[in-house]
Amino acid sequence: MTAQDSIQHYMLQLGKNARRAAQTLACATTNSKNQALAEIHTQLKHHQADILAANQIDMAQGQAKNLDAALLDRLALNEQRFQAMLDGLQDVISLKDPIGEITDMAYRPTGIQLGKMRVPLGVVGMIYESRPNVTLEAAALALKSGNAIILRGGSEALHSNQAIATAIHQALKNVALPTESVQVVNTPDRSAVGYLISMVDYVDVIVPRGGKGLIERITKEAKIPVIKHLDGNCHVYIDNEANIDKALAIALNAKTHRYGVCNAMETLLVNAEIAERFLPQIAVLYAEKQVELRGCPITQNILAGHVIAATEEDWSTEYLAPILAIKVLPDMDEAIQHINHYGSHHSDAIVTENFSKARQFLARVDSSSVMINASTRFADGFEYGLGAEIGISTDKIHARGPVGLEGLTSQKWVVFGDGHIRQ
Amino acid sequence: MTAQDSIQHYMLQLGKNARRAAQTLACATTNSKNQALAEIHTQLKHHQADILAANQIDMAQGQAKNLDAALLDRLALNEQRFQAMLDGLQDVISLKDPIGEITDMAYRPTGIQLGKMRVPLGVVGMIYESRPNVTLEAAALALKSGNAIILRGGSEALHSNQAIATAIHQALKNVALPTESVQVVNTPDRSAVGYLISMVDYVDVIVPRGGKGLIERITKEAKIPVIKHLDGNCHVYIDNEANIDKALAIALNAKTHRYGVCNAMETLLVNAEIAERFLPQIAVLYAEKQVELRGCPITQNILAGHVIAATEEDWSTEYLAPILAIKVLPDMDEAIQHINHYGSHHSDAIVTENFSKARQFLARVDSSSVMINASTRFADGFEYGLGAEIGISTDKIHARGPVGLEGLTSQKWVVFGDGHIRQ
Repeated sequence: MTAQDSIQHYMLQLGKNARRAAQTLACATTNSKNQALAEIHTQLKHHQADILAANQIDMAQGQAKNLDAALLDRLALNEQRFQAMLDGLQDVISLKDPIGEITDMAYRPTGIQLGKMRVPLGVVGMIYESRPNVTLEAAALALKSGNAIILRGGSEALHSNQAIATAIHQALKNVALPTESVQVVNTPDRSAVGYLISMVDYVDVIVPRGGKGLIERITKEAKIPVIKHLDGNCHVYIDNEANIDKALAIALNAKTHRYGVCNAMETLLVNAEIAERFLPQIAVLYAEKQVELRGCPITQNILAGHVIAATEEDWSTEYLAPILAIKVLPDMDEAIQHINHYGSHHSDAIVTENFSKARQFLARVDSSSVMINASTRFADGFEYGLGAEIGISTDKIHARGPVGLEGLTSQKWVVFGDGHIRQ
Repeated sequence: MTAQDSIQHYMLQLGKNARRAAQTLACATTNSKNQALAEIHTQLKHHQADILAANQIDMAQGQAKNLDAALLDRLALNEQRFQAMLDGLQDVISLKDPIGEITDMAYRPTGIQLGKMRVPLGVVGMIYESRPNVTLEAAALALKSGNAIILRGGSEALHSNQAIATAIHQALKNVALPTESVQVVNTPDRSAVGYLISMVDYVDVIVPRGGKGLIERITKEAKIPVIKHLDGNCHVYIDNEANIDKALAIALNAKTHRYGVCNAMETLLVNAEIAERFLPQIAVLYAEKQVELRGCPITQNILAGHVIAATEEDWSTEYLAPILAIKVLPDMDEAIQHINHYGSHHSDAIVTENFSKARQFLARVDSSSVMINASTRFADGFEYGLGAEIGISTDKIHARGPVGLEGLTSQKWVVFGDGHIRQ
């Protein structure tokens, strides 16, 4: 047996274990799932020293390998981050259990009673990098929604993830739920990912989290549906009928509230009629925050000396930094075309007092969140009231935009009769 | 440029055309979409002679190529089938337009108002065999839900499909909607399918219809989400607490109402306590319909001389014929395990008067339709009130079970504010 055969065999075994555990989890009561999560909380506290020690090993190996500082920072666990993990777990316990909900129950003309029942997807495959807290967060969300999960973290976090898994397994054992409900892949071999995303019989959905390169590779190669987040090139369009105060507040907030997030504005679009009034005012606010401006020729004209020339590439760039592209346009039509062409269909906003234009923008902008007179920064699972977030989907199939527990569920049809047969 | 290059170029052009048309369709009013469908109705009647003549060419070529009789039957159009196509089109006109519906609109604590708006997926790729009526049906459903569609029918139906497309294009022109809303692939080259299922930038969902081989190949190779129907190995479980009359009616209906359909029962599961009472009675009814019975050893014992031995393969077989596998089991637990193991997660029923067992069965059977005291034959878009059916999905992601217009839609988040910014 070659090494590859053995990794394939190992992954298939994880898959079979997960499928079996999923059958038990699908019927677990809300109480028993919450008890499991509470016991995980207890065991994590109990294993805290072990987990932090395991993290020290990962950190030391990472430093020896000269991993970059940002990656090491994401990898590091300390008392404060550990407490944040525990708090996040409490939040998941307090979420409403989505499973078993029956909706739209109604009689059909034939006399059968038809409804839809929410059920788990089955087995989730999670692929992520560095942050060990994702191990706990993903496991908790999967358990709460009645799914088994196979976790494949980055090789740099292997010891941390294994230590967290040990605590989770102890907890599952204590509450008599299958320990295979949560499995952490124990090999750093990259081929394990290839198997995980191809086991169509054992895995129902893949959730990748990480850099764009990772997500693109997984999407390209996966044989299983992927809930993925690619990028967030978000826009705010300032209409000529915008209220200037709202426009200033929103344009400032969407760009500068946080820079490294997917729902931050990356391109500001401004109607030509309002540009000479609006741009000098917002430029002062951006200057205070040291935001670099890159503008179209008209913007350069209006903000001469405070803006550099934008290139074609700027319109498609997600800066994730204090940099902003600005374009002046003759009307809303061109703004919508710009957004649908250059944007990433994530979150886009219009600022206008005109009711008809607001309706048009809402209907025609093809993004997972479309906003009227509100900052793109609101596109977020917590702001939307979903509780914890599985991820943000830039796809249209299954789940779109911020994805909560419901994204890990499906609905089956249920039919009640009294001996009904089809005529 | 090689022939392959030219087919790839042609398919990419169809994709780009469709994407552009989809932008217009997404904002088309319900009235304008219904007018387009009504005009297609008019133009089809107007082009009826041309379409039937084109179908004659396909039929003659098919006969010359010795295509099998069943395939030729599906290919054939006549006055009656043409009328059925027209009637189906009227049904689609009468369906409620799903697009633009806003649900769950509510204030969040921050003061933003959040809801979900139903929108088209964008571009649908349809891949199917022989039946030319699918060309019209799929085009009508796509238009009604605001999607552009690229249709790739079987090479044996090329002339029929082109003639139907000509009528559709004339109609779209007459109502000033983009003719590229509906495009029929004009090459019989098989590589066209390969391109269609890989154009991630231009196609949002693939809907295949046809034999299991076709569906499996497409699922394996597609880079785009697929709404697919694989097979229907459906079960009815007769519990020991079943009402015998209901059990007889349902077991008879589920098997014999129609044989060649995916929601027909293929395996009958019977509780051991009731088997000696139930099996001889149902065997008489099946004998009247000349259904061949294949049973487990206990069944063979009870129905000696009226049943042949079932093999392991029978439990996984979708007969689509007057053949039925029968297994006697000690309890519901084993029935549920049998269904989840051997079934295809399509439609499965229990007959019981016991409330607690009914609830257990409902929760634990992992199928797209789960029924209590009703025939599996009800699992159908029309019976479920969905109107026309895009297909029946055996997947859990996006759409499950019978898929209506809603399966060609997605929801985007909409946020209304009054200058709201994130704190």
